[in-house]
This record gives sequence, C-alpha cells and structure tokens, in this order.
Amino acid sequence: MTESGRPPADAMTNPRADRVRDVAKLAGRPVRLRRGQFLAEGPQAVGEALRAHRDALTAGGSELVTEVYASLECLKKHPQLLELAEDPVCRLHMRVASELVLEAMTDTVTPQGILAVCNFVDVPLDQVLAGKPKLIAVLCQVRDPGNAGTVLRAADAAGADAVVFTASSVDIYNPKAVRSTVGSLFHLPVVTGVEVGDLVRQCKAAGMMVLAADGYGHLNLDDLQDESAARGFDQEVPESQCELEKPTVWLFGNEARGLSEEELMEADHRVAVPVYGSAESLNLATAATVCLYATARSQQRDGRQ
Amino acid sequence: MTESGRPPADAMTNPRADRVRDVAKLAGRPVRLRRGQFLAEGPQAVGEALRAHRDALTAGGSELVTEVYASLECLKKHPQLLELAEDPVCRLHMRVASELVLEAMTDTVTPQGILAVCNFVDVPLDQVLAGKPKLIAVLCQVRDPGNAGTVLRAADAAGADAVVFTASSVDIYNPKAVRSTVGSLFHLPVVTGVEVGDLVRQCKAAGMMVLAADGYGHLNLDDLQDESAARGFDQEVPESQCELEKPTVWLFGNEARGLSEEELMEADHRVAVPVYGSAESLNLATAATVCLYATARSQQRDGRQ
Repeated sequence: MTESGRPPADAMTNPRADRVRDVAKLAGRPVRLRRGQFLAEGPQAVGEALRAHRDALTAGGSELVTEVYASLECLKKHPQLLELAEDPVCRLHMRVASELVLEAMTDTVTPQGILAVCNFVDVPLDQVLAGKPKLIAVLCQVRDPGNAGTVLRAADAAGADAVVFTASSVDIYNPKAVRSTVGSLFHLPVVTGVEVGDLVRQCKAAGMMVLAADGYGHLNLDDLQDESAARGFDQEVPESQCELEKPTVWLFGNEARGLSEEELMEADHRVAVPVYGSAESLNLATAATVCLYATARSQQRDGRQ
Repeated sequence: MTESGRPPADAMTNPRADRVRDVAKLAGRPVRLRRGQFLAEGPQAVGEALRAHRDALTAGGSELVTEVYASLECLKKHPQLLELAEDPVCRLHMRVASELVLEAMTDTVTPQGILAVCNFVDVPLDQVLAGKPKLIAVLCQVRDPGNAGTVLRAADAAGADAVVFTASSVDIYNPKAVRSTVGSLFHLPVVTGVEVGDLVRQCKAAGMMVLAADGYGHLNLDDLQDESAARGFDQEVPESQCELEKPTVWLFGNEARGLSEEELMEADHRVAVPVYGSAESLNLATAATVCLYATARSQQRDGRQ
C-alpha cells in the first residue's frame, strides 16, 4: 500500500475483470470441489486464516491462503491484517480492491471489506485418529449451512479434537457455513465426505465410544453427567457402559428428522438431552452444544484427578 | 369444510381482498403494537396456539386466537387442527384460503399452508414473580429475531418459568422470531418491554439471584456446576455466594457485544461459559442454552434430594 493512503497502482477497480469472476465462482460447490478452494470473508475469518497459514508454513506444511483482497478502508481499520499477510513467513501480496469489486466477489449482502481465497483444510480421518482424540463431533445429513458452522464453532469451544461432516451433510465450505464458524474452521481438524458406517468402524477400532444424540434415546444426558460427577467424588454408582469421561464420538442428525434408523444403529448408546419444560426438543445447534459440553466437562474433571 | 373435499363457498381466493391485506400488515411492528396481535404460521405453531387458546378459555381466561386461515391441502394433511379449532371450547371458524391468499398474508418464502392471528401473550412481570419462579431468562439488546426465538425455545426446554425481553431487545412477535420458537412462545410466560434496572430490582426483591452471562466473567460455569454437584454429594465445598440451585435470573446480552457495562453492574455475579478450545466464544443461543441447562440440572438435582 502507498504511504499516502491512496490506492496503489495495482488496485482492482473493475468488477467485471476475469480475476473477480474467478473468485466469485467459488460461491458454487462444483467449482470449489474442482479447485479445492473456498472463500473466507471478513476481518475475523481472514485473520484466523492468515494465522493458520503462518502456523502451517512455520511447521513446514503447505500454504493455506493463496490470495487476499481488501478495501483500503478495511486495511486502515485492521492494519495488523496487512502486516500479517505480508510478513516474511506468510509472503502474501494483499491486493487492494474497490468495494464494488469485493461485492462482486461474494454472495454476502453486506461484504466486510476483506476476503481470502483458501485451500481446503480438511484432513483424512486416519490423521485425526492417529492423534488419539478424546472428543469428535459428527454431523450427519445436516442441511443448513448456518447450523453446520454453529456446531463447528461450539465443538471448537468445547475443545473437541475434530469435527466430521458425513457425505450426506451440507458442504462446510459453503460461504454461509464458513461465516457461521467465525474462524473456528481454522482452529481444529475437519473431516469431510466419509460414510457413517466406515467412520464408526474406524473410531470404535481406535477405542472410542459412539453416542447418538437422540430425543428418544434410552439414556438421559443429565443422569450420565450425575454419574460422572459421582465417580469423581468416589461415590458408589452402578457400573455403566456409558461413561462420559471415555474418548467419545457424538453423532448429530438432520435438523428436522434427527438421525436415521441406520445411523442410530451404528451408535453404542442413544442419549437424550432431557426436556424439563414443554418444548418438544432443542434445535440442532443448542442440543449439540449441551452434549459436547457435557462430555468436555466430564473429561476435564477426570483429567484433573 | 364440505365433505366432498371441494373448497367451501366462503373460501378466500382473492389475494387483494381487504381482509388479506389486514392480516399481511401484521408483518409490521407498529401495526402489531396498535392491534396487540401477531401471526403464528405453520401446522406446529398454529397447533400450539390453538391448544393454548383452548386451555385459556377452559381456565376462564380470554381468547388467544382470533382467526385461522388454511389451505385445503393443509387441512387434509392435518385434520386434527380443524377439529381443534372448531371444537366447542375453541369455537373458531377456520377459513379456507387459496395458496395465493396465504402467500399474500405472510412474509415467508415458503408458506406452510396455515396461519393464525393471535392476541399478544405477554404478561406483566408481577404476575411471573407471584408464581415464585426458579428460573428466568432475560434477553437484553438481542437484535436477531431468530436468536430471540431460539433462546425462548431453549428456555422452554430447560423448564424456565419465564422469558423476559427488555425494552432494547428485538420484538418477539416478529414473524421470524415466532417461527424460531417452534411453538414455545405459547408454552411459558413471556414478559416484554421492561427496563433491566427495574427488572433486576423486582427479581432481587423476590429473592432471586441475578447472573450475567459474560465471556469475561470472574466465575466459571463449570466450577459452579462442580460445586453444586459436590453439595449434592455432601462433599465439603468452600461456601459460595453463587449456588446454582438458588432461584436464578440469567441475563444474556447482544450477539456481538454481549451485556453492556450498565447491565453487568446489575448482576450479582458475572459467569463465563468456559472455552476449552480456540474459539473466542459461543454464539448467543448456544451459550444461553448451556447456562440455562446448568441451572436446570442443579435445581433438578437439588429438588430430588
């Protein structure tokens, strides 16, 4: 950028330029799949992408971010993003673009002044399991990109070791899904496109317990938490096959229908979040958060002892 | 309805009729406020509204639903809704309307074949406090109608006694908010338009503890839950001023900024949902659910002893 604050000579101002159209095409799934790339938008997400990019390069890995476009106004407000992108490790040349160009690049109604083209971040399941994970969240047939992103964010907050999107779930690289993760997509390993049966088999072989979140489940999550707490206090509790402290895989189903009968059959146990009032159920993201936090709490307590 | 399944003679087919326009105007807040009415849409929400209407009339209260409009197709699929509306207690004449008419009545992209005009359901705070509530959720400066509805639904699931929307929060009668409650708006008392200061004063006078959900809070929700569990097992725990079992009011703040400094000052304690991973925070609805369920669990356990 020029010191005067004026747009540099190579600023992009033509919203119909080929490069702009190329970026805009990442709104479509087939193009994302073909290129293995997706868009991160807004100062927070781009910041997280750049930090993940720097960490990957520092660790000898491959690049995560390939292009960054920002408005002058955004760069003035977030100078640290320019510094980060152009630092000696990241080595990215941040292109200044007009608001019109940025608008043409995304499907957002209110573009946030900066976006990055990123390489897919998903990893193979083997790699996740090699790290001896204690908590994995699996989304089966989840349809809404916002829900998918919100559960990924909640899994990150709960300290999960990975999030898996099965082949039948929405694309986590969908722009709305990426936005809903608020950067968490760059914080923890993500696995995509696996079949539930394969996934469960591999996780069980790795010694993990598989729990299905199911409103009609025969086990009550609060009872399991009470039993876990009781074990923590060396109280006598009936022996349980479903100890929340164990390394756990949680399966979460479709927003309207929950998990299918086949998916339920794969689980070791079906666990219901208790409903104390008159609501029929919680929505997907809130139910998943309660489940993931219940496991996280039990494992944390267990880890302290 | 005619037995032949053909539309009855008084079926509404003109989307430009005055009655249709009158219903459509309920999408706007000033009209809702002037009339004291709002729209419930879809089989589930209308079903809950009709049941609440019947319960209110049975208890000698005033009517909740004033008009119901449905497509023939929807009535064929959900005949119990017609029966319920026209039963001797409800005494509502369900009007059959064409899909075009129903579309013109709502702002939904995909209308669900049935809608009800309902009278406001909110009640004064005094009335809630007279019932000796144990758990109240308060939404301060919440902006997104979907979030407001989702928190109301979660509060219902957690068995809360009421949900309060302060004067600075989004209108819970907004069509999108109503849809997100998935019927919970008709399950538990709702209070609207109060100032936080007044609310807190009255709740404290009624013996309730006021907790602020605050990412920077000095108390950790999981520690509080552990202490609560320990008391349940008669373990020695340091004396705490913040026992989750107590009758509790939770304050939740704006999606982006959280609670304001003034709102935080009103609380007895500031409590953080711990973040075990790298996420900066949970989103509003997921954080609120974890808080409300933590209190519900502690109170349930306490109630069993």
